[in-house]
Amino acid sequence: MMYIGVDIGGTNTEIGIVDEQGKLVAHDVIKTGVYHTACDYVDAATKAILVLSEQVGGLGYIVGVGIGAPAANYYEGTIEYAANLLWAHDTKVPLADMFSQRLGKPVRVTNDANTVAIGEMYHGAAKGMKNFIVLTLGTGVGSGIVVNGQLVYGYDGFAGELGHMQVIWDGGRPCGCGQSGCLETYCSATGVARTAREFLSSTHKQSLLRNIDAEKITSKDVFDAALDGDSLASDIFNYTGEILGRACAGFATFCSPEAYIFFGGLAHAGELLLEPIRRSYDARVLSLYRGKAKFLLSGLDGATAAILGASALCRMP
Amino acid sequence: MMYIGVDIGGTNTEIGIVDEQGKLVAHDVIKTGVYHTACDYVDAATKAILVLSEQVGGLGYIVGVGIGAPAANYYEGTIEYAANLLWAHDTKVPLADMFSQRLGKPVRVTNDANTVAIGEMYHGAAKGMKNFIVLTLGTGVGSGIVVNGQLVYGYDGFAGELGHMQVIWDGGRPCGCGQSGCLETYCSATGVARTAREFLSSTHKQSLLRNIDAEKITSKDVFDAALDGDSLASDIFNYTGEILGRACAGFATFCSPEAYIFFGGLAHAGELLLEPIRRSYDARVLSLYRGKAKFLLSGLDGATAAILGASALCRMP
Repeated sequence: MMYIGVDIGGTNTEIGIVDEQGKLVAHDVIKTGVYHTACDYVDAATKAILVLSEQVGGLGYIVGVGIGAPAANYYEGTIEYAANLLWAHDTKVPLADMFSQRLGKPVRVTNDANTVAIGEMYHGAAKGMKNFIVLTLGTGVGSGIVVNGQLVYGYDGFAGELGHMQVIWDGGRPCGCGQSGCLETYCSATGVARTAREFLSSTHKQSLLRNIDAEKITSKDVFDAALDGDSLASDIFNYTGEILGRACAGFATFCSPEAYIFFGGLAHAGELLLEPIRRSYDARVLSLYRGKAKFLLSGLDGATAAILGASALCRMP
Repeated sequence: MMYIGVDIGGTNTEIGIVDEQGKLVAHDVIKTGVYHTACDYVDAATKAILVLSEQVGGLGYIVGVGIGAPAANYYEGTIEYAANLLWAHDTKVPLADMFSQRLGKPVRVTNDANTVAIGEMYHGAAKGMKNFIVLTLGTGVGSGIVVNGQLVYGYDGFAGELGHMQVIWDGGRPCGCGQSGCLETYCSATGVARTAREFLSSTHKQSLLRNIDAEKITSKDVFDAALDGDSLASDIFNYTGEILGRACAGFATFCSPEAYIFFGGLAHAGELLLEPIRRSYDARVLSLYRGKAKFLLSGLDGATAAILGASALCRMP
């Protein structure tokens, strides 16, 4: 049997068919943003799914469809006021029902970070784990939390927004959510770029990063400089890891996970980030938890992780 | 059928038999601290359980035993290095097995705050809820977290120590756990007394609390003064509630619970505490969660809550 994964991004929607072993056996991409109504979008997406399904012998081999999407409510199967989606920015769209009616298959919807967590559980770094946290470190910071082998959706279906846990209570960086001091203002790719600008202006330390227009510095630039032995770039990763480690020490008091798994662009920094995370975690975590948790990089291929994770959504009990 | 609840405190152990409806039908107390070995203690406790059981028709009517204890590991059924227990301070005691062997019944062990959470679910303010957090505001701050209808025990059996989430990252109050800025240094009964001493020395505001030796002020004194209209005492509750509300706003990003339930001595302050909690939560929580969660006082009778909660432990699926 096989599983369909759909990853709805602001620009493109990736659609794939995944087998039991996590192999992507068929794959297509459609535009997300060109449709004005949810109906037109879902028509296009289901058409693509039907064509793909023919490649694997037809819909009869498909168990169900999992969809990763912004502003997704797992319980209701809806996406709600998704700012970046033309056909869903001002309304609730009953996405699961719409796909299900057209395909005659069970359909589940959740946010991207949750699909990554499920992907890690079935096909990645969390195989065999029942308690873990995935942090997706991209433009923002997302999270998927698994407790007792189940995704944490909370009362309303929207749980798991650790990127908006306020880690600096007073005088923290302003966040797009309207609050300040949120984890993602420090530990996202954009947070790292901002730290770089702050460090460049607050010190006189030599740095390769001074060769780049400060406003254009990206986390990738900081990574490249650190690999070249740039000391200021290392300071930036240490600062970022220090905050992530302290945040994880707080998360431990909640669900004492077996592992923290880091996914997304910033996770490519690998040990540059993991080393200060571990150090800061060990220094801060309640002694009861010290030395127990693993700090891991995603075990998924970045290019197909979202589809793989979404497809595994329909395998959850 | 009936359920036995055992609440192991440093001085006394409360033992009770509870029926399906949550009525305490038999009750006894033994000393905890007078035994030198775990074996002697468990012998005494099981003897008391057997005598109590006779009052309800014998062990045949008993489904199982739930035990609330410090430093309890749910998965292993042990208590581990419990600082305040003479017979368990330097070792792991396989409490569940020891009781089970003597009584021939299933036995589960967890910490006190978790038993309160289960008590609230079966007999208190969380009836019918599947996602909620109980905060026990006593000498320290404990927590019991329920997600998807299940207690969160984490990978190691020790999850749910929100009292030791660091809420003030820099310059916070030192905590008994060795860290600083932990929630319980501000929002426990001792935290409130400390706030009182700080406020009394940092302002010249008139206050009934100035009639008490500062070192002897308790949270009860602050409560009494607030009821008498004392403005400084109100300030102290506002400060405490402000911190609790911000902490809850952080907890929301984790598991978006239906309710936060407050239990223990400090919770008797009622609206004096709940009002600033709600205000601070609403101002800080991610807009996605705003206006959704309830802030409730415990629905359990303080005197029997621990036994009731422990007894319900063996009712969990």
